[in-house]
Amino acid sequence: MKVITLTTDFGTSDGYVGTMKGVILSIAPDVRLVDISHEIAPQNIRQAAYVLHAAAPYFPAGAIHLAVVDPGVGSTRRALVIKSSHAFWVGPDNGLFTLLLSDEPDAVCHAITNAQYLLPSIGSTFHGRDVFAPVAAHLARGVELAELGPRINDPITFAIPTPIQQSDGSWIGHVLYADHFGNLITSVTSSLLEGMGGVEIMIGQWRIASIRSTYADAAPGELVALVGSSGRLEIAVVNGNAAQALGLGPDAPIVLRAIRQLD
Amino acid sequence: MKVITLTTDFGTSDGYVGTMKGVILSIAPDVRLVDISHEIAPQNIRQAAYVLHAAAPYFPAGAIHLAVVDPGVGSTRRALVIKSSHAFWVGPDNGLFTLLLSDEPDAVCHAITNAQYLLPSIGSTFHGRDVFAPVAAHLARGVELAELGPRINDPITFAIPTPIQQSDGSWIGHVLYADHFGNLITSVTSSLLEGMGGVEIMIGQWRIASIRSTYADAAPGELVALVGSSGRLEIAVVNGNAAQALGLGPDAPIVLRAIRQLD
Amino acid sequence: MKVITLTTDFGTSDGYVGTMKGVILSIAPDVRLVDISHEIAPQNIRQAAYVLHAAAPYFPAGAIHLAVVDPGVGSTRRALVIKSSHAFWVGPDNGLFTLLLSDEPDAVCHAITNAQYLLPSIGSTFHGRDVFAPVAAHLARGVELAELGPRINDPITFAIPTPIQQSDGSWIGHVLYADHFGNLITSVTSSLLEGMGGVEIMIGQWRIASIRSTYADAAPGELVALVGSSGRLEIAVVNGNAAQALGLGPDAPIVLRAIRQLD
Repeated sequence: MKVITLTTDFGTSDGYVGTMKGVILSIAPDVRLVDISHEIAPQNIRQAAYVLHAAAPYFPAGAIHLAVVDPGVGSTRRALVIKSSHAFWVGPDNGLFTLLLSDEPDAVCHAITNAQYLLPSIGSTFHGRDVFAPVAAHLARGVELAELGPRINDPITFAIPTPIQQSDGSWIGHVLYADHFGNLITSVTSSLLEGMGGVEIMIGQWRIASIRSTYADAAPGELVALVGSSGRLEIAVVNGNAAQALGLGPDAPIVLRAIRQLD
Repeated sequence: MKVITLTTDFGTSDGYVGTMKGVILSIAPDVRLVDISHEIAPQNIRQAAYVLHAAAPYFPAGAIHLAVVDPGVGSTRRALVIKSSHAFWVGPDNGLFTLLLSDEPDAVCHAITNAQYLLPSIGSTFHGRDVFAPVAAHLARGVELAELGPRINDPITFAIPTPIQQSDGSWIGHVLYADHFGNLITSVTSSLLEGMGGVEIMIGQWRIASIRSTYADAAPGELVALVGSSGRLEIAVVNGNAAQALGLGPDAPIVLRAIRQLD
Repeated sequence: MKVITLTTDFGTSDGYVGTMKGVILSIAPDVRLVDISHEIAPQNIRQAAYVLHAAAPYFPAGAIHLAVVDPGVGSTRRALVIKSSHAFWVGPDNGLFTLLLSDEPDAVCHAITNAQYLLPSIGSTFHGRDVFAPVAAHLARGVELAELGPRINDPITFAIPTPIQQSDGSWIGHVLYADHFGNLITSVTSSLLEGMGGVEIMIGQWRIASIRSTYADAAPGELVALVGSSGRLEIAVVNGNAAQALGLGPDAPIVLRAIRQLD
């Protein structure tokens, strides 16, 4: 039984996601449907890219990840299907798959052009329903990428923000997004931290003296830094909401400074 | 494998929807469950009717659409099951199925009265759990409408708002609801527009000079009118939120005026 | 086909719930996944306990109820698996299963300690993904509790708030939580009410003269008391929002006074 995941900025009030599921089940009645998120901020391609990138590795091999955050719907932007080493990816060609393509430069991309696999009456505003849902369902039934459209080699990607080292040796990174708990997820990865030894962190007007290994080390209400579940440095308030408490969000800078150890 | 869809105003915080699904799976373990919306505004029967009407045609034939927006629960309002040409419909008799019945006047309606197909202990506040979920599950198992209760011919419907032509030839329609993106969905259908040629639109204090075929024709932030995915005229702000920007919502009037073409 | 339900405070925006489902389907591809709630207030163990307790009885026998509201993640708090007469329960040992254990004192509890059934790389912040999801999936495949870890007899529970009788014969209970409709769910159960005959209710500065059997008895906007779908006294505004209208929430006291009947 194939798994199709869905990630969109459609919200859940209007039935748009249910409609896509109806289309999929009409074509591939046996697939398993799993929601990753439908609460991506409207048109926020980068947030969707990070959320999908954190969740996708935990799905069974061969899963089909359908992502629709699509500010360019109705324009000439291409529709994409991608085959990576362990999964398929379907969505608009606007950067949604940037992190995947960075991890897997050998992934194969095709533009979706074969109208035979789309709904008969394609509108100009809801390609989640008319294009991407039917293509994901046909993939689940075994249709090959080459049948869907021509191979392309220039999918759109955004520049992945990575921390930059300053002349004094410190690193400047950024907040990527705030999650449901108000934890600020940053561009600083565990691999950078591993090379630095002890660090102190400056974010906004706050200083955090060290990186903890778990929330449980700290008192409720305390501001802490730790490596979160997706391998990124997170700034959190224990049992609280850091985004609200600090008044910070996407693009806020974060500075890491190595602590000189006396020995 | 039968599909049962669910549309309610229950929200997703309290477990009410999960409870209904537990009831369904206890009776019909093999059905596929698909959420259409649980974020219908509390007691908003009309919004539910429109949302369900837009999504239902995209589901496989024989799907069972369970809808519970039920301000009259515990009163003498009837419980309904309807068989249309391609689907089943289950819910309170309060207008929820108005648009369906308008499309399919030959759909067959029965009142649900046979206690054998309901939960043994029916309360007075949660017929989604005690009445409608078990009936949907029994339908999935092949129970006939006539076993559930007597045929009726007078299901409750509301007057479907349709645009009205003024003496100067213009049409006045209304906003039906705002969707997750803040797009204002109106009572003006594509079939009315097809007969009008070029039109200009007045809504609130704003004038929109023409109807676009896609969002992609316009600049971000621009106020546009276009026919949306459900075949209705929508007022939108490109990559923005029209409901917020205009301060308008349900029942706001919209005026369409044919543009005289010089030739 | 086994059913696994999910109850968390993760929200639905970040893909955390989808990630858990990916883990489950990677281990047990055939399970049915049903969401109970992911909108538990952050770290609100009691709300989760009540929501899960109200929904769980409606699921098929043998269902596996996975609950993750986990302020102590990364600390030494234990991870639990419980087998009751009709279901399994998986989650942190922090009181989440208090109401279940009160109903079923003979339920068997085991601590989860066998790393063989967890994800290979357990982090310190997302045991929903690394511990509880894989354990639920292995339970669905038939793994025995004794394989997961040692039996324990001291699971953590909170004191279940129950109404207290005053010297004048009246009872004082409390609001437990407000649901999606703003209905105030209280600690007063139908069994207490059955013993009291006619009652009047004081909550905040309001007096409610009697308990109704259904919303439909009252006018829209009226403040009413009735026994809700989970067998608890609820304070509601008909077709309105009592929590907002009264400005009351969890822990607000409610007083019940028997009405002397003249005969």
